[in-house]
Amino acid sequence: MTDVRVAGVGLTRFGSHPDRAGRDLFATAALRAFEDAGVAREDVEALNYGNFMGALAEHQGHQAPLMAEAAGVRCPATRYESACASAGVAVREAVRTVRAGDADVVLAGGMERMTNLPTDEVTEGLAIAADDLFEVRAGVTFPGAYALMARAYFEAYGGGARGPRARRREEPRERGSERVRPVPPGGVRRRGARRAAGRGAAAPLRRLSDHGRRERLVLVSEEYATAHDLDAPVAVTGVGQRTDRLALADRAHLARTPAADDAADAAYAAAGVEAADVDVAEVHDCFTIAEVLAVESLGLADRGEGIAAARDGLTTADGDLPVNLSGGLKAKGHPVGATGGSQIAELTRILRGDHPNSEHVADAEVGVAHNAGGTVASAVVHVLEVAE
Amino acid sequence: MTDVRVAGVGLTRFGSHPDRAGRDLFATAALRAFEDAGVAREDVEALNYGNFMGALAEHQGHQAPLMAEAAGVRCPATRYESACASAGVAVREAVRTVRAGDADVVLAGGMERMTNLPTDEVTEGLAIAADDLFEVRAGVTFPGAYALMARAYFEAYGGGARGPRARRREEPRERGSERVRPVPPGGVRRRGARRAAGRGAAAPLRRLSDHGRRERLVLVSEEYATAHDLDAPVAVTGVGQRTDRLALADRAHLARTPAADDAADAAYAAAGVEAADVDVAEVHDCFTIAEVLAVESLGLADRGEGIAAARDGLTTADGDLPVNLSGGLKAKGHPVGATGGSQIAELTRILRGDHPNSEHVADAEVGVAHNAGGTVASAVVHVLEVAE
Repeated sequence: MTDVRVAGVGLTRFGSHPDRAGRDLFATAALRAFEDAGVAREDVEALNYGNFMGALAEHQGHQAPLMAEAAGVRCPATRYESACASAGVAVREAVRTVRAGDADVVLAGGMERMTNLPTDEVTEGLAIAADDLFEVRAGVTFPGAYALMARAYFEAYGGGARGPRARRREEPRERGSERVRPVPPGGVRRRGARRAAGRGAAAPLRRLSDHGRRERLVLVSEEYATAHDLDAPVAVTGVGQRTDRLALADRAHLARTPAADDAADAAYAAAGVEAADVDVAEVHDCFTIAEVLAVESLGLADRGEGIAAARDGLTTADGDLPVNLSGGLKAKGHPVGATGGSQIAELTRILRGDHPNSEHVADAEVGVAHNAGGTVASAVVHVLEVAE
Repeated sequence: MTDVRVAGVGLTRFGSHPDRAGRDLFATAALRAFEDAGVAREDVEALNYGNFMGALAEHQGHQAPLMAEAAGVRCPATRYESACASAGVAVREAVRTVRAGDADVVLAGGMERMTNLPTDEVTEGLAIAADDLFEVRAGVTFPGAYALMARAYFEAYGGGARGPRARRREEPRERGSERVRPVPPGGVRRRGARRAAGRGAAAPLRRLSDHGRRERLVLVSEEYATAHDLDAPVAVTGVGQRTDRLALADRAHLARTPAADDAADAAYAAAGVEAADVDVAEVHDCFTIAEVLAVESLGLADRGEGIAAARDGLTTADGDLPVNLSGGLKAKGHPVGATGGSQIAELTRILRGDHPNSEHVADAEVGVAHNAGGTVASAVVHVLEVAE
């Protein structure tokens, strides 16, 4: 078992890039990652690539060979898909590949292109991450699903539905992810859901219109880093992946995400750290309630205390435990299949001290990344540490 | 590094199953695999799942959690997608996971459902395995792409275009995979390609109308097999995966599949065997030319001699080196994302001696499975051996 280092990261800016093909942006991100890493692309032995909905958004499956060509690497290239946790799973497997000694250098990350679909088709496309037979056909969209989770949370722990933040629900023009139209008790027909999305009733997803994104990580073994005299101080010391039932109706508790609980436990155990050791976190806050649940799953706040952690300032940029110094998923537009990789890329820079927001965590040594798919039916947690 | 054993296999019959959901068929296959293996599903530590076009055919992504639930396992579940090599890649990763000691028991396989799409939409869907920008929009379909490869082969090695088999092209009612309408020199518009498929001009794909299929493998470590006194004589001793350029136009030679050449070399090297040691093979014969190229990539025939190997009887059921005793992909309807798993399942049974066609290879000890994605931009080769 070797130590796994993040040798370098490369990102393209979040946004719509109508004038460039995905493969071109990918090539740019790869170039940046190789430059940052100081690693020759000839040394790459595997490409692990996350993408969620390319079949729908780009009429392009089988993207791994395409991205290998774009990145200029000649190696086995594999696509991983776990909805919004696609890139997280790709990185997890890359870490395992290096740790097992099957490769010294792996290029890992994700890409998602969504801006070439109309907004209502994006909503429809994202819905393939839910259970088509038992959720989507009953009218469930992702804002609807997370609204159910938020309601369950407020019912279980209070402090929400009647609290100051929840009032935003009555103010549809105000920014906030609870601003959703609840699914009627009898559900809605799928065509109805499509129309509703088109009218903007599932409002948070509108902001997904801005999210072309590719990010790449170069992961190397400690031996390779030493042999090549790389400046790669950040190590991936623990990973955990867990899977839950896909449909919300099959879960014991809508306000908990046990897949993330267990993935965090596994990652902490592998790293030999505890939640109390964590200095900084990037979490999957596709909706505000998702951040609350993530903070609790990671053990950074007690059950039912996730909202208080934010409200009391613990997890703000100047708090003791900053969460999402990168701006989080909503700030990025959440390019679904790429998000998990960008978390680790940004966390690496935060821990290295060369992220624009590194100043908030000057002495951070332990970071954790939490990436979720669907309504957390898939969860991947990575622990990153500044190595000696 | 532990030895990896195929503890058990389970298959559902090939065909259209309009009355059952994919997850139900999956549950059936899993039940059979667990019964065959004698392994408790509680012991499964990972599910590796291959699927290609579920987003289009079933409006269902994020299928791994769904299949974990169907199979009754609680473990990290991951979907792999490499077009028609999806299940092969899933199994490859499962082998690596067990070999690295990251899990003692992995459930691996694939599923593809295509019968719920009209035939012309299946043709369109399959096309996402090709390069959308530079192939599909120019009118390339998979029959067209493989027809180009066949033509290049015949031009390079002769014996084809003017030979007896090639005459089938002039006999459109006769069965044979070369029966395609060549793409016009100027290409056709995509809409034109759709219409052409609908009229049956890309005839071989019509036969894909019969292909609901799920297959599962239970892979275990040698230690687990010994500890649980399993009857698991077949070991996966070598795997190789390689990636080529996606678009045919970027390849140096249309009549060669270097990704498969290299994947075979890697698998043989890992297993410590040579092509001459192989007793039986399952190869990716989505078109007849694909079998010819596969046999050459595996080193079972010299370059340009793949047709002769079949014509002279070497690779027929009663030949010295039977290829596709299972009937091959066309006999199965080629459920694309599932095919790679079924090859290994059938090869396992052939080597165990309990396959209906085992009689043709009574003393077979070494088998090889060749699984390809797209026009062999992805290739995965597994070597299976009867262990001591």
